[in-house]
Amino acid sequence: LKNRLAALLGLVVFPAFSQSSPPDQLPLMPWPAALSVQSGSAPIDSSFSVSAAGAGAADPRVKTAIQRLFIRLSRQTGVPLLPHVVAGAENGTLNIVVEQKDHASPQRLGDTERYSLKVTEGRIRLSADAPLGALRGIETFLQLVQQNSSAGAGSSASPGFSAPSIVIQDEPRFEWRGLSLDVSRHFIPAEEVKRTIDGLAAVKLNVLHWHLSDDQGFRIESKKYPRLQQYGSNGLFYTQAEVRDVIAYARERGVRIVPEFDMPGHATSWLPGYPKLGSGPGPYEIERGHGILSALMDPTNEGTYRLLNGFVGEMAKLFPDEYFHIGGDEVSPKEWNDNPRIQAFMRKQHLADAKALQTYFNQRLLKIVTRHGKKMEGWDEVLQPDLPKTILIQSWRGQESLWQAAREGYKGILSAGYYLDLMQPASQHYAIDPMKLPPEMQKRLEQQGKTIPPELTPEQRKNVLGGEAAMWEELATAENLDTRLWPRLAAIAERFWSPESTTGVASMYARLEVTNRWLEWLGLTQRSNLELMRQRLAGKAPYQPLDRFASVLEPVKGYARHAEKYTSTTPLNRLVDSIAPESEAARRFRDEVDQYLTAPKNPGNAELLRQHLTLWQEDAAAVRPVLESNSLLTENLAVADALVSLCQTGKEALDYLDSTKQNADAGWKQRSMSLAEEAGKRHGDILIPIAPGVQALIQAVAAVP
Amino acid sequence: LKNRLAALLGLVVFPAFSQSSPPDQLPLMPWPAALSVQSGSAPIDSSFSVSAAGAGAADPRVKTAIQRLFIRLSRQTGVPLLPHVVAGAENGTLNIVVEQKDHASPQRLGDTERYSLKVTEGRIRLSADAPLGALRGIETFLQLVQQNSSAGAGSSASPGFSAPSIVIQDEPRFEWRGLSLDVSRHFIPAEEVKRTIDGLAAVKLNVLHWHLSDDQGFRIESKKYPRLQQYGSNGLFYTQAEVRDVIAYARERGVRIVPEFDMPGHATSWLPGYPKLGSGPGPYEIERGHGILSALMDPTNEGTYRLLNGFVGEMAKLFPDEYFHIGGDEVSPKEWNDNPRIQAFMRKQHLADAKALQTYFNQRLLKIVTRHGKKMEGWDEVLQPDLPKTILIQSWRGQESLWQAAREGYKGILSAGYYLDLMQPASQHYAIDPMKLPPEMQKRLEQQGKTIPPELTPEQRKNVLGGEAAMWEELATAENLDTRLWPRLAAIAERFWSPESTTGVASMYARLEVTNRWLEWLGLTQRSNLELMRQRLAGKAPYQPLDRFASVLEPVKGYARHAEKYTSTTPLNRLVDSIAPESEAARRFRDEVDQYLTAPKNPGNAELLRQHLTLWQEDAAAVRPVLESNSLLTENLAVADALVSLCQTGKEALDYLDSTKQNADAGWKQRSMSLAEEAGKRHGDILIPIAPGVQALIQAVAAVP
Repeated sequence: LKNRLAALLGLVVFPAFSQSSPPDQLPLMPWPAALSVQSGSAPIDSSFSVSAAGAGAADPRVKTAIQRLFIRLSRQTGVPLLPHVVAGAENGTLNIVVEQKDHASPQRLGDTERYSLKVTEGRIRLSADAPLGALRGIETFLQLVQQNSSAGAGSSASPGFSAPSIVIQDEPRFEWRGLSLDVSRHFIPAEEVKRTIDGLAAVKLNVLHWHLSDDQGFRIESKKYPRLQQYGSNGLFYTQAEVRDVIAYARERGVRIVPEFDMPGHATSWLPGYPKLGSGPGPYEIERGHGILSALMDPTNEGTYRLLNGFVGEMAKLFPDEYFHIGGDEVSPKEWNDNPRIQAFMRKQHLADAKALQTYFNQRLLKIVTRHGKKMEGWDEVLQPDLPKTILIQSWRGQESLWQAAREGYKGILSAGYYLDLMQPASQHYAIDPMKLPPEMQKRLEQQGKTIPPELTPEQRKNVLGGEAAMWEELATAENLDTRLWPRLAAIAERFWSPESTTGVASMYARLEVTNRWLEWLGLTQRSNLELMRQRLAGKAPYQPLDRFASVLEPVKGYARHAEKYTSTTPLNRLVDSIAPESEAARRFRDEVDQYLTAPKNPGNAELLRQHLTLWQEDAAAVRPVLESNSLLTENLAVADALVSLCQTGKEALDYLDSTKQNADAGWKQRSMSLAEEAGKRHGDILIPIAPGVQALIQAVAAVP
Repeated sequence: LKNRLAALLGLVVFPAFSQSSPPDQLPLMPWPAALSVQSGSAPIDSSFSVSAAGAGAADPRVKTAIQRLFIRLSRQTGVPLLPHVVAGAENGTLNIVVEQKDHASPQRLGDTERYSLKVTEGRIRLSADAPLGALRGIETFLQLVQQNSSAGAGSSASPGFSAPSIVIQDEPRFEWRGLSLDVSRHFIPAEEVKRTIDGLAAVKLNVLHWHLSDDQGFRIESKKYPRLQQYGSNGLFYTQAEVRDVIAYARERGVRIVPEFDMPGHATSWLPGYPKLGSGPGPYEIERGHGILSALMDPTNEGTYRLLNGFVGEMAKLFPDEYFHIGGDEVSPKEWNDNPRIQAFMRKQHLADAKALQTYFNQRLLKIVTRHGKKMEGWDEVLQPDLPKTILIQSWRGQESLWQAAREGYKGILSAGYYLDLMQPASQHYAIDPMKLPPEMQKRLEQQGKTIPPELTPEQRKNVLGGEAAMWEELATAENLDTRLWPRLAAIAERFWSPESTTGVASMYARLEVTNRWLEWLGLTQRSNLELMRQRLAGKAPYQPLDRFASVLEPVKGYARHAEKYTSTTPLNRLVDSIAPESEAARRFRDEVDQYLTAPKNPGNAELLRQHLTLWQEDAAAVRPVLESNSLLTENLAVADALVSLCQTGKEALDYLDSTKQNADAGWKQRSMSLAEEAGKRHGDILIPIAPGVQALIQAVAAVP
């Protein structure tokens, strides 16, 4: 009955974690480097207090983290906690020891993040070498605190919260673990950037790469060159005061901020204010469309370097981080090729082609960046001969190009495979490892007859510093940003932090679900804002049917949604904008189908599948009046109808598979497969991700002679 | 089928509003004074712009309201809107005319709020005499903007939003329309106070009465007497900078802030810092318990008045409003009676009793308040002979005492009947009118042989300025504050604003539901935070069953939950804290039962009821594992079991009522009624509000011979 009812509710009963559960079910994410679970627990109640000792305990980051700890623990338990910091190294409920004082500089690559956390005999001890480790350990501690489980009425478990007895030794696998956030294509206000930093810190990421300029908007105030934001932003930019505030906010949470100004391509928004920077005839406007656009900076104009010198100097002062990202990706050479003056310059300088001209530009830019005390970072394309080994390569092309750089002695980070805007499932990102060649890439190289790149030597491996997820904002806004980042970013964070061997997908998803809920206590809105958006769509009709319908839908993947019709002013207020990138229900259904097909005669499995399909069919029928009555929803009627038929066909397939008497005729097999294939295609911008599961059921019927 | 599926989802399909709907179904709340709906509409799309003209258009409140309008409209439609204010009085999509400049003083009682709003032929015109009217009209405009309805696929309605053609003439019935907010028993941070002000302004309330001190906490910084907050607040208080910020925030939204410092009772939190103010022997501590407590200020000590003079002077400068609330309620005279020095003073001054001593105190306080340029306000008890007519009475006792004051020439406002912390349904508050004697009060007076107070004369009616809802925070925190205020406060706001004749409960509930969703776009969290709280309770188990179970539960009403065990440090993190005061589903069920019993042979009605009961029964069974596995939820197992039995009994009653063959035997009738009565009683702090509906069904069976 429990299963039947759970199925009726569209749920699978989630395995309860308990102290007897296997340790990999503790809701920790990223998973620690080493961990052993013991029996017992430390209660967390209104008497909770903290002590802090050691030379590093006075660090402002540690002090403010402790203040935040009380607030967060209070929210996540509902227990009113006043900040209660006690004197004496061992007198608190949680005793924090931070051995060393940190250097006085801004947070640097390689600052140690190691910590250990021990919960034994009702006492909790967090030890760290340095302040950053204390910050990371506090997040782990907060994840450990869970409501006491109970064995039902009359159980002896006291109502409340506790942390299980455990010993954790933890440190990150990679030292550069980031998120690249595009705020140009749609502006993300400072408040949301800060909220994102909360999330990064919670899952132990340590870099926010702030993609501040692109064709569609110049998002930062320059006091030296104010026409940049005045003409390039539609008023949507960060003041320098806001930037300083965000940087301080990030520092308190152990997150570095690396600014990016994309040059010489992806630079249209510089040009309405300073058209002389451009290589084309102008006039220039802020770009509303997307893609690789033609506007380029003019690398042959000395005025370009004068302005860049002034601008980089200004930004180098504003941003304390040692790295400065100059973009450098996706240069389409048309404007250079069409400009006779630029062509003449190239001939004179013996620059054979646009690539050579970009290298020339990069070398000039490198001098400027270096003069202002920064290390230069750029996307793959900047990696050209004659650049010094100090530059850092961010690879959007993949392990092949990243490893090539590492072999040549360049440091690099991987972003390929971690693009969150492509709406791929968490498992897909989770499978990508900076140190492993993805099977598809290997296959492709083989097909192309190319050499499979050899493994890196231990020395070369050191050049791979880590990775960055990326969120490009063509089709997302501040409103649904959280839903595009979370929870999938937490799985990527685990890839960057946890040991290479941490690869279990089932464990990842189980922990991701709890982590996702936990992140909402930070104020992240991945669930609540989608609900709000669907309420807006439901208008005056009930919104619950839309919520249930949405739970088995996903947006189309990859670049399938990018079409001429989208510009940066297109409203992103449709159903596709209001659904999660990955459907939990569909993922589980696929697992259940696999289980069923492994053991088709288990009547419980079949019954569960049948109940899911029945419920989804009813939901899709129930949502019809809501879709019919609202002008923004009518486009989704076809999805609802396809879902109804798909579920019906799936149930028929189950009937055939369950029955020993009756075989499906060829006509049914053909009709059903074709129907399920149609249902599996895109419906506008929406997919029905249960289609593959139903297809598998039909194939199983078809396999019966 | 549509109904069956809707029932399966626990829903009633909400009647879609359309331009052909009766006008009282437009989602406006409070309902305007006069309105006529016409055919047609004005589209609201990304070209939306505003013009502002007239002498009052330059008022900062109007200018910032227009800036906010773009942001809010953008959120509520999902259409990206940049602030687009055009020159010329008639060139915008929305053309605002504000005839007069306002006086330069702080917002005053009686400042006109009148406006008219016309949507005709695709143009929108908002006219107001003065800035406040423009603010009120903008809220009405925002409520009018709804998604275009559609007649399904292929419908000609263009996808998007519009405002229907309409003419509205509007002004408030009462000039004082407020919320009294207790921030002492549980502290409400400034951020939440500002969010509450957003909500007040949205439903056209114009006073936030800030109850800043009480026994459980002194919540404001005094620079003159810093021991007040240092010893009286546990660090939970507003700095003066925060207070100024909140006041400015409220002014921008047309909301006055009236501070209250409750004296001489409800004043424990003054005394840890300044024990000499007290009438007892001390020592004093911040009070953790609730109720009418014994600590009183000493009205016989000249030092009391010296401190109060200094303190009131400081606060009078900080708070610009003309009114200053001195509390004055619930004085329990024990400390005065027990203190020989105070008794001697009373004899000397010929003060017969504690009441007379309090009047003496009030008269001294009045002089202080007046000296600092303020009008004094107090609760009923301050109304004693010899006080001047300038004071304002806030009545928590009811119309009888309010009218008495009005007859004597005192101005007054009503709070009795509007206590939101008592968890009553919106309809109950909505039925209370400052100008009408509630039937129960009339009955009680008749039973007691007392005179029924006569209606007020037109002149006396002018002394009734309006009313204030009140939210006392014994059992609420910042976390669930919004859920206790909204949406019920919107129904009270309608009572204060709309014509006396606006009393239709069905219309109110229909509009309240849409208004409730609309309010969430302001950032209010009445839905989202309850979900978050239930997720916390669900722990690692699925939370959806808990959401569904919670939808047919309500907290106990009135003071039923106040018991010894609650103090201001008790965690308010249980299921009762995480459910809405009023169950939508239960309200509708009761209506459907009434409908069914009026026409018992309508099989559709019976089927609907049966489906609801079946679903709730299944939900209550499905939630059992969640309740069993979490230590904070086991206390609710009895509710789930009672709900299962109740639904079963309800279905049996329907079976008897539907069948012509079979009659229930006396045993069934008795067993069932007793079961349903038990289910209708409190289960811990929780009620099952569908019990009365099931009882009605059983009674109908019992009525069959």
